[in-house]
Amino acid sequence: MNQRRYFLKKSAMLAAGSLLAPTIPVAGKASPGKHNPLSDAGLNGQPVNVHSLTQSGQDNLIKISFAGYTFRNYDLDATLEMMGKIDARYLCIKDFHLPLTATQEEIAAFHAKLAAKNVTGCGVGPIYMRSEAEIDRAFEYIRRVGVKLLVGVPNYELLPYVDKKVKEYDVHYAIHTHGPDVPLYPDSDDVIRHVKDLDPRIGICMDIAHTVRCGSDPVRDLKKYWKRIFDIHLTDTYEASKQGQLCTLGRGIVDIPAFVRTLRKIEYNGFCNIELTANKENCFASAAESIGYIKGVVDAL
Amino acid sequence: MNQRRYFLKKSAMLAAGSLLAPTIPVAGKASPGKHNPLSDAGLNGQPVNVHSLTQSGQDNLIKISFAGYTFRNYDLDATLEMMGKIDARYLCIKDFHLPLTATQEEIAAFHAKLAAKNVTGCGVGPIYMRSEAEIDRAFEYIRRVGVKLLVGVPNYELLPYVDKKVKEYDVHYAIHTHGPDVPLYPDSDDVIRHVKDLDPRIGICMDIAHTVRCGSDPVRDLKKYWKRIFDIHLTDTYEASKQGQLCTLGRGIVDIPAFVRTLRKIEYNGFCNIELTANKENCFASAAESIGYIKGVVDAL
Repeated sequence: MNQRRYFLKKSAMLAAGSLLAPTIPVAGKASPGKHNPLSDAGLNGQPVNVHSLTQSGQDNLIKISFAGYTFRNYDLDATLEMMGKIDARYLCIKDFHLPLTATQEEIAAFHAKLAAKNVTGCGVGPIYMRSEAEIDRAFEYIRRVGVKLLVGVPNYELLPYVDKKVKEYDVHYAIHTHGPDVPLYPDSDDVIRHVKDLDPRIGICMDIAHTVRCGSDPVRDLKKYWKRIFDIHLTDTYEASKQGQLCTLGRGIVDIPAFVRTLRKIEYNGFCNIELTANKENCFASAAESIGYIKGVVDAL
Repeated sequence: MNQRRYFLKKSAMLAAGSLLAPTIPVAGKASPGKHNPLSDAGLNGQPVNVHSLTQSGQDNLIKISFAGYTFRNYDLDATLEMMGKIDARYLCIKDFHLPLTATQEEIAAFHAKLAAKNVTGCGVGPIYMRSEAEIDRAFEYIRRVGVKLLVGVPNYELLPYVDKKVKEYDVHYAIHTHGPDVPLYPDSDDVIRHVKDLDPRIGICMDIAHTVRCGSDPVRDLKKYWKRIFDIHLTDTYEASKQGQLCTLGRGIVDIPAFVRTLRKIEYNGFCNIELTANKENCFASAAESIGYIKGVVDAL
């Protein structure tokens, strides 16, 4: 090191050699002892965020992951190869990469394959749940997979059953907001309307482009519902309407810097999952540009 | 549009549909009438920056280009295909894509091929010049190519001849800084030491990672030498030393956000050329992640 350290990135120690996980330090100094709104006791006196996912000593970071759905046209090997090239270290697991029927042995092999590529599974889903049997299956799956975050889309009438299962399995259940395309849970308001009296471990996986597409504001929702927001889908869209197509992060109209600024403000400590659903042919290009974009935003703020 | 416009990006109009060039608006409002330090008369009463490259109505923007050297292992078709996938619109032309001996017809075909892919050549080089004959050839080349920025590396003793040619051809001549690896022009200090008494159209193409690698500070140099900085190579490195390997933007230690902030401050209006020299196998991944990174930085600041 030399006297020009002031010009070098604060994160130099983390970035050099890329040996560590791609968790990205915030602009300010790390302050582990600082008040963290997300560690407050929740509605029923229980913690309301996925603290178990936060790595030791790495509080107060924006943690970047990929939603498995991004790689729906690729098998696990191809997915991990792409993720390696762009230094992506976390994956929210979809069933086409690890079937809901996977045995304990298959799951162990899956985790070993991820670990060999420096990738960690940080949750499962989204999983649609249209019956109690499907709910049972999903909860047994997450128990076997060994993660603590289940992203789900349960039929409204099944929510009391989800509530029972969350208490039984002690996991966080994040309901995916899917914008104006589907009747179930278009945005965070709708999720909260249905879960506000349920266990505080039942909350939201907020998809920010879908939120914008259905006329809501992700920043407002983040400020309003942070106690129930356990997962984020980082997405972008060309237009704030149902017609708005999803796109590579940074190419659309969603104000991602404003959103990241708010994530810091509320000290969000769940994962931010890049999810890309357009550009089937250019999936890899879109993934690389998108992870670059979010790293640029995080570095600059 | 709706009432939530405050959440949408200021650049929504530009970004929507990606129909326009990927010039990226600054955070503040455009202010065409505002004082622009780079439009001041230079040392000899002549303008000192490449204003001719600024698109009408798009002042005060950070203009992202690619240094042709990034794509040295790909022919022009493959290069343009990659650039299209990541929405890159400007290319600083290298001789392996357009030979120094190219005829007027070959050059016209080259420009047509770029235009068909929405790409514009914004300069040529770097070109090494070790004799008057090589200088003659380079200046005839830029005249035929029809751009106004020549990135060059002339032997020191040939600078008086370069001075004569710049006056004759009325182009900007930006000398590439190459860090501690080569004896010629390691950093901006060295360029200025040699050109300060020459025509003000002779200046610097500052490579920021090489600058850091040889112990200098790109932000300091930008503030000090802005009148002579006509071109930028946006690069990153893992280490602030000769041993430091170059890398994808955002993965290294160069504080690119601080640099971009200073570009805005001085109202730099040349191009910022992403240049990637490592990762031969992962050139495309690196290019995609890098353009994403710089867009993220620009959007967030």
